[in-house]
Amino acid sequence: MSGTPSPGRLWLIPTPLGEAADPRRCLPPDTVAIASRLHYFIAENARTARAFLKHLDLDRPIQQIEIRELSEHTPAAELPALLAPILAGQDAGLISEAGCPAVADPGAALVALAHHHRVPVHPLIGPSAILLALMASGMSGQSFAFVGYLPQQPEARLQAVRTLEQRSARSGETILMIETPYRNQAIFETLLSGLSGDCRLMVASSLSLPDQLIRTDRVAAWRNSPVQLARVPTVFGLIAPAQPATAPKDRERAQRRAAGRQR
Amino acid sequence: MSGTPSPGRLWLIPTPLGEAADPRRCLPPDTVAIASRLHYFIAENARTARAFLKHLDLDRPIQQIEIRELSEHTPAAELPALLAPILAGQDAGLISEAGCPAVADPGAALVALAHHHRVPVHPLIGPSAILLALMASGMSGQSFAFVGYLPQQPEARLQAVRTLEQRSARSGETILMIETPYRNQAIFETLLSGLSGDCRLMVASSLSLPDQLIRTDRVAAWRNSPVQLARVPTVFGLIAPAQPATAPKDRERAQRRAAGRQR
Repeated sequence: MSGTPSPGRLWLIPTPLGEAADPRRCLPPDTVAIASRLHYFIAENARTARAFLKHLDLDRPIQQIEIRELSEHTPAAELPALLAPILAGQDAGLISEAGCPAVADPGAALVALAHHHRVPVHPLIGPSAILLALMASGMSGQSFAFVGYLPQQPEARLQAVRTLEQRSARSGETILMIETPYRNQAIFETLLSGLSGDCRLMVASSLSLPDQLIRTDRVAAWRNSPVQLARVPTVFGLIAPAQPATAPKDRERAQRRAAGRQR
Repeated sequence: MSGTPSPGRLWLIPTPLGEAADPRRCLPPDTVAIASRLHYFIAENARTARAFLKHLDLDRPIQQIEIRELSEHTPAAELPALLAPILAGQDAGLISEAGCPAVADPGAALVALAHHHRVPVHPLIGPSAILLALMASGMSGQSFAFVGYLPQQPEARLQAVRTLEQRSARSGETILMIETPYRNQAIFETLLSGLSGDCRLMVASSLSLPDQLIRTDRVAAWRNSPVQLARVPTVFGLIAPAQPATAPKDRERAQRRAAGRQR
């Protein structure tokens, strides 16, 4: 009787947020240890993944490690082939271009397919620009939303910014967004012109890297001392002024989370 | 001339998600190194913070390290006193009960006050149950929202679940929520009865710990093989079936993020 093999595990492996960061310093030893013993990786970019792996103390020559790409250009029809070695019993690591895989990247589709086939999925601890930005914002972490990218067309972008402030005012949410680095300044200027003066705005650039810059201020204060943003990865955050009506709900949440203990 | 001293820095220090986890294994060496040399901490719970610090190789006896509490019971009027040593030039570490400080905990108010006084804020890398759950969900990370706790009253909770599915169907968002552990089963049963069969539902318990449990499935499949949830920290996630109308936007995002490179 030849039974079906047990599937391997899919490890979700975060990587540093920039090439200036040493993975052995900015990743937990447990994450490094698992990444160092895997022989099959699915990476958003094979070149970047190889550069990451070269920093680790691998248990075999890097030439013997298989790296296949899963990028935004990978057709959905190719996902089963990427999963096949795992179904045959091999462990695999999923690696994003920077930060946590399967968050705002093409890896989520592979994770979904893994769940469909009952492949155990193991997320590992490491850096996330979105989460570091949220921590550093000083804005409410009781409820927050990541909305990705804003529209490119200026009028649509301005309208989107106004809609996001209205949403934050209604829900109390902190709103986080990212942009391609060369468009940082355009987004920043749209935020300054579209948001009301009392809205709080965060700019968080190069998080966890030597040139990290984090500033949260009221929009009115930003307007008095605007900055020129570098073309580096940046997370923007905003929260509308607190609405008196939301206070009782906040208090209730605060009381209830006394027994919750995780974030 | 006696000038004002430069303020110290406020370090945001993540801690393990459970007592079973060794901080030296699940935190990056950079995070551990900074936590080990600070002499002033602001912690959600002083006892838990002391237990965490005892795992580290501190540069002085723990009795000489000051730990003050900032919990959900701390009045806002006491925040300036917590910040005062930092304004006088001392570095400080902010520590949550578990996971990342200032995300769904009372620390965000202190971070906001730090920004107001131009105190440099430095978020450090470490575990977040919310982020690990999002990675592991296989659901869209292109846009997601954390909504905290659902209402306690059964009818209101059922209505909230239906509203969240409608929101996910409209926006394409992945929705994440948490609950106090003893209410896990009640939330789970409300999700199974309130969501439509095609909705995908994730249960992620004890993340990064030995008894970790992660399962994502369609609600119809969950109904066929329901589970009894342990009373341990759990993140729930849901996403409504993809709406054809959102596809072009997803494609545009995929193309644009080719130059983005962070998550």
